[in-house]
Amino acid sequence: MNVGGRVSQVSVLMGSDSDFVIMSKAVDILKQFDVTYEVAVASAHRTPDLVAELVRSAPERGVSVFIAGAGMAAALPGVVAAYTTLPVIGVPLSGSALQGTDALYAIVQMPPGIPVATVGIDAATNAGLLAVQLLALSNTDLAERLVAYRRNMATGVLEKSRAIQEKST
Amino acid sequence: MNVGGRVSQVSVLMGSDSDFVIMSKAVDILKQFDVTYEVAVASAHRTPDLVAELVRSAPERGVSVFIAGAGMAAALPGVVAAYTTLPVIGVPLSGSALQGTDALYAIVQMPPGIPVATVGIDAATNAGLLAVQLLALSNTDLAERLVAYRRNMATGVLEKSRAIQEKST
Amino acid sequence: MNVGGRVSQVSVLMGSDSDFVIMSKAVDILKQFDVTYEVAVASAHRTPDLVAELVRSAPERGVSVFIAGAGMAAALPGVVAAYTTLPVIGVPLSGSALQGTDALYAIVQMPPGIPVATVGIDAATNAGLLAVQLLALSNTDLAERLVAYRRNMATGVLEKSRAIQEKST
Amino acid sequence: MNVGGRVSQVSVLMGSDSDFVIMSKAVDILKQFDVTYEVAVASAHRTPDLVAELVRSAPERGVSVFIAGAGMAAALPGVVAAYTTLPVIGVPLSGSALQGTDALYAIVQMPPGIPVATVGIDAATNAGLLAVQLLALSNTDLAERLVAYRRNMATGVLEKSRAIQEKST
Amino acid sequence: MNVGGRVSQVSVLMGSDSDFVIMSKAVDILKQFDVTYEVAVASAHRTPDLVAELVRSAPERGVSVFIAGAGMAAALPGVVAAYTTLPVIGVPLSGSALQGTDALYAIVQMPPGIPVATVGIDAATNAGLLAVQLLALSNTDLAERLVAYRRNMATGVLEKSRAIQEKST
Amino acid sequence: MNVGGRVSQVSVLMGSDSDFVIMSKAVDILKQFDVTYEVAVASAHRTPDLVAELVRSAPERGVSVFIAGAGMAAALPGVVAAYTTLPVIGVPLSGSALQGTDALYAIVQMPPGIPVATVGIDAATNAGLLAVQLLALSNTDLAERLVAYRRNMATGVLEKSRAIQEKST
Amino acid sequence: MNVGGRVSQVSVLMGSDSDFVIMSKAVDILKQFDVTYEVAVASAHRTPDLVAELVRSAPERGVSVFIAGAGMAAALPGVVAAYTTLPVIGVPLSGSALQGTDALYAIVQMPPGIPVATVGIDAATNAGLLAVQLLALSNTDLAERLVAYRRNMATGVLEKSRAIQEKST
Amino acid sequence: MNVGGRVSQVSVLMGSDSDFVIMSKAVDILKQFDVTYEVAVASAHRTPDLVAELVRSAPERGVSVFIAGAGMAAALPGVVAAYTTLPVIGVPLSGSALQGTDALYAIVQMPPGIPVATVGIDAATNAGLLAVQLLALSNTDLAERLVAYRRNMATGVLEKSRAIQEKST
Repeated sequence: MNVGGRVSQVSVLMGSDSDFVIMSKAVDILKQFDVTYEVAVASAHRTPDLVAELVRSAPERGVSVFIAGAGMAAALPGVVAAYTTLPVIGVPLSGSALQGTDALYAIVQMPPGIPVATVGIDAATNAGLLAVQLLALSNTDLAERLVAYRRNMATGVLEKSRAIQEKST
Repeated sequence: MNVGGRVSQVSVLMGSDSDFVIMSKAVDILKQFDVTYEVAVASAHRTPDLVAELVRSAPERGVSVFIAGAGMAAALPGVVAAYTTLPVIGVPLSGSALQGTDALYAIVQMPPGIPVATVGIDAATNAGLLAVQLLALSNTDLAERLVAYRRNMATGVLEKSRAIQEKST
Repeated sequence: MNVGGRVSQVSVLMGSDSDFVIMSKAVDILKQFDVTYEVAVASAHRTPDLVAELVRSAPERGVSVFIAGAGMAAALPGVVAAYTTLPVIGVPLSGSALQGTDALYAIVQMPPGIPVATVGIDAATNAGLLAVQLLALSNTDLAERLVAYRRNMATGVLEKSRAIQEKST
Repeated sequence: MNVGGRVSQVSVLMGSDSDFVIMSKAVDILKQFDVTYEVAVASAHRTPDLVAELVRSAPERGVSVFIAGAGMAAALPGVVAAYTTLPVIGVPLSGSALQGTDALYAIVQMPPGIPVATVGIDAATNAGLLAVQLLALSNTDLAERLVAYRRNMATGVLEKSRAIQEKST
Repeated sequence: MNVGGRVSQVSVLMGSDSDFVIMSKAVDILKQFDVTYEVAVASAHRTPDLVAELVRSAPERGVSVFIAGAGMAAALPGVVAAYTTLPVIGVPLSGSALQGTDALYAIVQMPPGIPVATVGIDAATNAGLLAVQLLALSNTDLAERLVAYRRNMATGVLEKSRAIQEKST
Repeated sequence: MNVGGRVSQVSVLMGSDSDFVIMSKAVDILKQFDVTYEVAVASAHRTPDLVAELVRSAPERGVSVFIAGAGMAAALPGVVAAYTTLPVIGVPLSGSALQGTDALYAIVQMPPGIPVATVGIDAATNAGLLAVQLLALSNTDLAERLVAYRRNMATGVLEKSRAIQEKST
Repeated sequence: MNVGGRVSQVSVLMGSDSDFVIMSKAVDILKQFDVTYEVAVASAHRTPDLVAELVRSAPERGVSVFIAGAGMAAALPGVVAAYTTLPVIGVPLSGSALQGTDALYAIVQMPPGIPVATVGIDAATNAGLLAVQLLALSNTDLAERLVAYRRNMATGVLEKSRAIQEKST
Repeated sequence: MNVGGRVSQVSVLMGSDSDFVIMSKAVDILKQFDVTYEVAVASAHRTPDLVAELVRSAPERGVSVFIAGAGMAAALPGVVAAYTTLPVIGVPLSGSALQGTDALYAIVQMPPGIPVATVGIDAATNAGLLAVQLLALSNTDLAERLVAYRRNMATGVLEKSRAIQEKST
């Protein structure tokens, strides 16, 4: 299966199209770092074969990192990890009665042998950044841009600190 | 795949062989009611293809109900349910640092469309009984034996009550 | 007691009429599959005799599966199960300060001997589907319609995936 | 049903005979205050009719307060309360994987209209004392003995304080 | 201290005046049953002496039951219980970040010797009813009115059940 | 680093400028007691060097107490404590999916050797008061003003109690 | 009341003598820093008057900091804080079915106006160190000894690191 | 700082030497895959400068992936991530009263901008495997060995399944 006919370094999967509100923040980071990506809705429970097919064929599309977001009994990240030895980043999504605790436990508590690199609840931005960090292991340009990104973030904190100081006196 | 070469009404699956300490209690109930069964270790994360194969071929082996037990990020029951429209009974297993809450949430919080009939944490006996209840829907003999089982249980409570009454006076 | 004077395959019970907002989703599924049903408000705490009577007389009305939804100290599903050996599907309802955790624990943690087939918090759609799955064990037509339902659901996921792919490029 | 043929002011019920290890502490308090009592094992799930019968006939045996202890999906206290307008004291019992949180929620979160006076997890001593406090509302002798009990308890704390002071210097 | 110069059977205390939104439901029940009451704001942390004084002088005002509602580190019910051997009903209030779990634990988990009869989170109606149940132990009129109240409640459930049955067909 | 060029007795730090909505309540208390303070945004994760520098240079600016507020994986209070032996007051902030439980655990569960004086979730007012209490240990004027503050608070409770009494009769 | 007839800088209170197993670790730290202390068992629920008396008379005995440890519905630290404007350090103790979560919530979630400086569950060592930090605000010798204590701790970590490095190669 | 004078691909850090019981499982995996590593004890709270120094100098020692394990208010993984843009794998350790929930929340709930790739509670084996997966992104040999490792694991499951099948018939 070819998702969009281009080379994608990161495959961004989600269990339901309603998850895209959160998961699009991972895509935003990938765009910002000029990392190519594919996006697909694929449910471990409703379309198990699609998940297997998407994951197994991913290397042919250039994929080397997966980001998988899911809520509730969030099986998707673990099932993606079951079909590949490439790194899988899991994003637990809130929105259920249990407010994401269910998804967090279902994603992070993987059995020995099949790790999922879990980020915080709804933390799709961090999932995107972690994917960039993994690609940067063999990409000096990305590594430098990550350092610059971090520096900008620190500058932003300093500016906000100054604004708060003025406001509070 | 033929698991043991005989007709099995219930397929009892578990994510790890160490789960058998608990899951054997489901088998004990099935034996007690003369329900045929198969038992297999099959991990949604370590052997995803085996799970798919076992579940898809189950009707050929006579299976009409699944019991799936798993701990931690307990994906097995949900993944079994993904491959069949037969009823799947899920048993969350404790033993992790989160004492089964992780498994409970990962099993019970299924997305709309793919239910798992979840029983209590480590409640393999009840999983076995629920399987018998499902088979009894079209088996009058089993239905009668369930009524007898329930009656014996009630009698047992009465006897224990009498013993406690004597002890406490 | 005759609830409506017709044969009902499924008895849908709830602890309070305010629960119908959620529980009606189970009814929607039953209608969709042409499964007959009865609906009643019956509280394990406010009308215990009504519950006993409704459950005990249910077989005369053709009932073979119960769906019981309740919130907070959700005793209804377990008490229904106490009066029958037919399968009981429990739906924990949120809406309390504890957001359904109380109802989930009160429904799923049944003692050995009396199982309740628990679905997720507010998961009345899945309760309806699970009821259909149980009836389909001895009804080939329902079994085929379940397969079709599942196939449609998968097609829906694929369509949503395509829409998200376009949106995200 | 006559449980033991004597007048009992307090009816101490428990869901399983294994609960007596904890529930006997309530009995110890009742003995200490010369309050008459009956003890029975009666399960809301395994013997629902027995519970109804025991509770409904209790006034004939002189019962004016119930103490009900149960673990897991602890329906017993609430179901006892459903059959009487006499006060019901509920004791959530630990021992499950959820360590009594399940029982606490299942007992304390009663719907409007049917209160259960809940004490702490495994707090059968306090259940006994609360029962004595209720009877003391119309029994001056008991009221005075409660004051004395409280005074002795305070003296005990002072003695222990002195012992710790010596130990810690 | 005389709170209003009249005889009060029940003393309704709360930690903050903002708690009255919930606690007024207890007062509504007391009014409905013609039980006399007093209401006061008294904080175990901000006005400890006032609490001690109010509780110790309560018998002179005719008080035989306390209802105490508090949120967060809800010490009030336990501290009231520390100053009296009369029964104390505790109402855990939600509204904090922990949504009442903090108050529930702080109220129900009393040490051996000093019980608090705890009702559900925000369950002030049940606190009022429990107070009436305690007074009814020595008041036949109240006991009969409780039975009538319960009967009306059951009738209400039946009416709602009929309405839902019509709505769902 | 000099934050504002004046002597500050208390350094109020927060992980993000959005935390100021809550943390400003600590500042309000400090103003009310004429305690000098500095305010800065400094993130243990985004600007670790800034935190180290701010904390290490604080004694030169006259700081003797730190208040640090943070949400989620709230490392700031602990990291501040790592760089000083002055007392550090930690304020867990809610606002995440886990509603402040994450921040509470991340702040209060410090390893032996490095305490953080933790207040309640979002309890910045109490953090301010605790800071004043610490400064009052060697400042008689502050100590007296704290006693007056407490007295006013008690009077306020009494006034509210009277208002509620009138409202409820 | 004079607890031991000597000047005590820190008053170490606990709800039960069985708490001394943990609370003695606070005493060990105070001894190590030559800080004078008193130790008493005093229960907010069993001996409320003793608590009030101990706290109110503490300044006469030289006390300027309180450490209060309690488990379950741990009211002691908050009640101590209610009787003084001196700083109160609270130690939540585990040992109940809820493993200290009850005590943590009951201690840390204080209402606005009455802070308790809460340390981790069973963290009596940190309570002792925090008390020393508070006294060190006006005691240069203690301040220097805290710096030395911290330095030794860091050296200990380095030595352990070396040992682990050798072990792991 | 040179930790052992050799090139290390992975830096394994832990907050306390007692954590090595668990963290050694990560080392075992690294050895098994012939990945070079360094091991150090470094506490974010007790030795913050050592952590900064170790992390900042790590690239000179050849480190491209960090594994950081910590318990309780587990700040170490986040603080390591604060000093590098290399990927950081966090291992929440149990052993506290909160059984690792505290560490899990403190590690996974990182603020936007600084991700930590979190694995399950005590899941040091998975941390080791995840590190190998990251290195395998640019190392074909490791990638192949991961595939073989996964295949062996699947074979192991099949063998255990056969053993259980024999045992259960």
